[in-house]
Amino acid sequence: MQADLAEGILFTDQYQLAMAQLYFVEGIHDRGAHFDYSFRSYPDYGRHQAGYCVYAGLGWLLDWMETARVGGAELAALRSQTTAQGAPRFRDEFLEWLEADGHFGDVELHSVAEGRVVHPLVPLVTAAGPLAMTQILETSLLNHLNYQTLIATKASRVAEAARGSVVLEFGMRRGAATGVNAGARAALIGGARFTSNTGISHVLGIDPKGTHAHSMVQAFIARGGTELDAFRAFARVYPDECVLLVDTVDTLESGVPNAITVFEELARAGHRGLGIRLDSGDLAYLAIQAARRLDAAGFTDTQIVLSNNLDELTIWQILSQIEEEADRYGVDASRLAARLVYGVGTRLITSHGRGALDGVYKLVAVEDDGGSVVPTMKLSDTPGKQPIPGSKELWRIYDERGNATADAVAMVGEQLDGVELRLHHPHRAGLSRTLAPGEVSSVERLRDVVWADGGRTEALVSVDLMRARRVADLTRLDPGVRRIIGPHIYHVSITEEVRRVRDDLRAGIAGG
Amino acid sequence: MQADLAEGILFTDQYQLAMAQLYFVEGIHDRGAHFDYSFRSYPDYGRHQAGYCVYAGLGWLLDWMETARVGGAELAALRSQTTAQGAPRFRDEFLEWLEADGHFGDVELHSVAEGRVVHPLVPLVTAAGPLAMTQILETSLLNHLNYQTLIATKASRVAEAARGSVVLEFGMRRGAATGVNAGARAALIGGARFTSNTGISHVLGIDPKGTHAHSMVQAFIARGGTELDAFRAFARVYPDECVLLVDTVDTLESGVPNAITVFEELARAGHRGLGIRLDSGDLAYLAIQAARRLDAAGFTDTQIVLSNNLDELTIWQILSQIEEEADRYGVDASRLAARLVYGVGTRLITSHGRGALDGVYKLVAVEDDGGSVVPTMKLSDTPGKQPIPGSKELWRIYDERGNATADAVAMVGEQLDGVELRLHHPHRAGLSRTLAPGEVSSVERLRDVVWADGGRTEALVSVDLMRARRVADLTRLDPGVRRIIGPHIYHVSITEEVRRVRDDLRAGIAGG
Repeated sequence: MQADLAEGILFTDQYQLAMAQLYFVEGIHDRGAHFDYSFRSYPDYGRHQAGYCVYAGLGWLLDWMETARVGGAELAALRSQTTAQGAPRFRDEFLEWLEADGHFGDVELHSVAEGRVVHPLVPLVTAAGPLAMTQILETSLLNHLNYQTLIATKASRVAEAARGSVVLEFGMRRGAATGVNAGARAALIGGARFTSNTGISHVLGIDPKGTHAHSMVQAFIARGGTELDAFRAFARVYPDECVLLVDTVDTLESGVPNAITVFEELARAGHRGLGIRLDSGDLAYLAIQAARRLDAAGFTDTQIVLSNNLDELTIWQILSQIEEEADRYGVDASRLAARLVYGVGTRLITSHGRGALDGVYKLVAVEDDGGSVVPTMKLSDTPGKQPIPGSKELWRIYDERGNATADAVAMVGEQLDGVELRLHHPHRAGLSRTLAPGEVSSVERLRDVVWADGGRTEALVSVDLMRARRVADLTRLDPGVRRIIGPHIYHVSITEEVRRVRDDLRAGIAGG
Repeated sequence: MQADLAEGILFTDQYQLAMAQLYFVEGIHDRGAHFDYSFRSYPDYGRHQAGYCVYAGLGWLLDWMETARVGGAELAALRSQTTAQGAPRFRDEFLEWLEADGHFGDVELHSVAEGRVVHPLVPLVTAAGPLAMTQILETSLLNHLNYQTLIATKASRVAEAARGSVVLEFGMRRGAATGVNAGARAALIGGARFTSNTGISHVLGIDPKGTHAHSMVQAFIARGGTELDAFRAFARVYPDECVLLVDTVDTLESGVPNAITVFEELARAGHRGLGIRLDSGDLAYLAIQAARRLDAAGFTDTQIVLSNNLDELTIWQILSQIEEEADRYGVDASRLAARLVYGVGTRLITSHGRGALDGVYKLVAVEDDGGSVVPTMKLSDTPGKQPIPGSKELWRIYDERGNATADAVAMVGEQLDGVELRLHHPHRAGLSRTLAPGEVSSVERLRDVVWADGGRTEALVSVDLMRARRVADLTRLDPGVRRIIGPHIYHVSITEEVRRVRDDLRAGIAGG
């Protein structure tokens, strides 16, 4: 499969290499350039929409930048490319340059920290460095950040719907090939507590989770045994981690009673049955009925794991139904909710309803022939698609209560602390908001240099730290913005100065 | 990132390993077992639905099976897993067994050939072998086959909509991490002619394709140059592969006239401008206007590459609009359609509208204590979800015209040639169809042994061969089944004998 060749520096769109050669031939490959990464809109899942995103993927992008090199295999591959006329597509001088300088040693990356809550239209990352290598970086950067941010965002929504209950990532059988490893990582950053993916759990230092499949029960039955035999065998091997899948034969008539029998046997042997899993049928109804039977047998804390096409909406529906119906069966709804665990598979790993984040990477400044770095923009874009030109900084502004009230793009060097802030909508003229110093409790610079001098500037960040960043940001976010349906729109804005630079440039291009 | 650990034998759901240990402790890990892979339904994209799928992913599954081994890193990882009580989760005896026997040397895989047109509810693959290892195979098998079949199917739909024009796969920046390599491969099998993904193109021996980005034009403008300067520079470096992106400044006022100027210069130098690319705006309208200007300048064959959120519906819409409007501008609609090339990105690599194939892998037979392999099934499933028990064979039946008229599941050893066939719907009782020998031109056994004795049974299959299989199958498929909206339902069925085995087993489990 030659995975190495397909995952190293050639993990890129062909046109990046074509442009790099053109820059080389033109002698502008080493000109300083700034590219901004931003996404254009929150994921809209159809009946529901995100009001914020969780930024993820940076750590693996930096891993890639550390190892992506033009080695012998890459050179041979590029040398083998020819035009229809049989001429080599890449010139020897360019390939020699690429072999020597085709790395990210001179690129500097400014980025928001992974795990943070982020918003559209503002530069989450700026890549500054030689034009050719910042260009070649594009595809891999977009690939890593778009997908992991998409999945971390979905996971955060699922976790919000689950109201503090444990969420398990179960999606590897339906996700995109090895991309499920990135997806599991992003889910863990965004809100899943564990994943069933064994390999990636070990890479990230998180315990993998799993129970058993229907096939185990079937194997016992086919041999002339029973579901109870299968459960007992499982309890013998896993007395302290016994979660039993109860829907192979009949959930309430067979699975739950057999699980209770086994949990009683475990209790007599000094162990504690951990839980049951429901994987089909009306999960809310079955959870209530299972809880009732478990309660009656004295197993009031046993987990009830739910799975089967779950996402934020189905979890919300399940909890609403439990709130309405549990009481009728003598089950306490909130105690039942507290013992639920959610196994979320396909709809998390594929971000059901919106399968891609619309992140883009745009040239915003480039060094001119005189050595000055000048802003640039693509004029033909509709205003909402126009990136903000120039070298900028990203700030978060907290109100008197300490809540995040706006993200603001400023020019590098602008002072935001202690002054009256006039903030403009990024592209809708006339929409502005003024914040007096007294309305602002603090301003936070959201980006730091994460890559310089050929390496990352800080040690590897743990999943736990990224989760802590997310949780801290969520507590400082207006609850309306966190709603899973029809969220409030968070303010993203540009300063007066940024607006001036952009409007001047726009007028200059249009006039020139 | 320790990609090796996360992509080898531990590229699996944790519960597979938990079950394998249980089978080992019970002494049934070496019992013969049969698992079937099938998908439950054609992808339904919302406003449009697939009437067939293109089977893909097998080659990479076999690659994985060849290399997935329990080595030192895997053993150390599994040995490090402990329960909450601190006890090792995996026993030494099991890990020793896993180190020695944790490979697929005793598994036999029967499968449809990659690239073939396939249908739901029938076993596309059967894995036969020791219970523990066929169980461990599940996750990786589902992961490879579900995603690549999903994308190959989408690509085939896009190619159908494009009516023979070239489709380019452009999705790596928005797909799922390294999963985009599998996605590009599947797209190439399913109908994309080329991909922009450089690395995977080299792995598969296909020329990568790409033009340039807006940033290249911006870089020239920021330096005080013009779009024309940028185009000329591109033409100098790529005189025989000059495809120019014309929408950075203004498509019709600047991009197209500048492209024509450069193509004229190229022509004078003995080269031929290859094409222009449109990446924004009303693509149908702009294609007509661009064609008109190119025609007027004598460039009647120059390609017009379209990109920007394309999928099968948008391509269909673009072609319909061209058919309606082209004439009004003196442009021949069918000649214009013939020069179009489609760059399809996000919506192909993510299978827009339906982000996952619902493929499952179910235990259908297992060796009992007496050494007989007996059928098994999970009774609680709804009929549509019940896999067909027992050891079966898959056939395709061709009618008098040579068109595929039904796929039929038979028991191993059943004779289908030259006899009257009574075919039943897989789960809807009472729905059957009888085919007299005269109505059948041929029957084809769809599956072969693709893996035995620890290795693949045939050499690596080229993308070209897989494409040829798809094209051959499509020509033998009813055009109604190929429609991209509201397709006819293709007949999938089971023989009288399969129905008897299943009904007997169902009655036996229900009664027993």
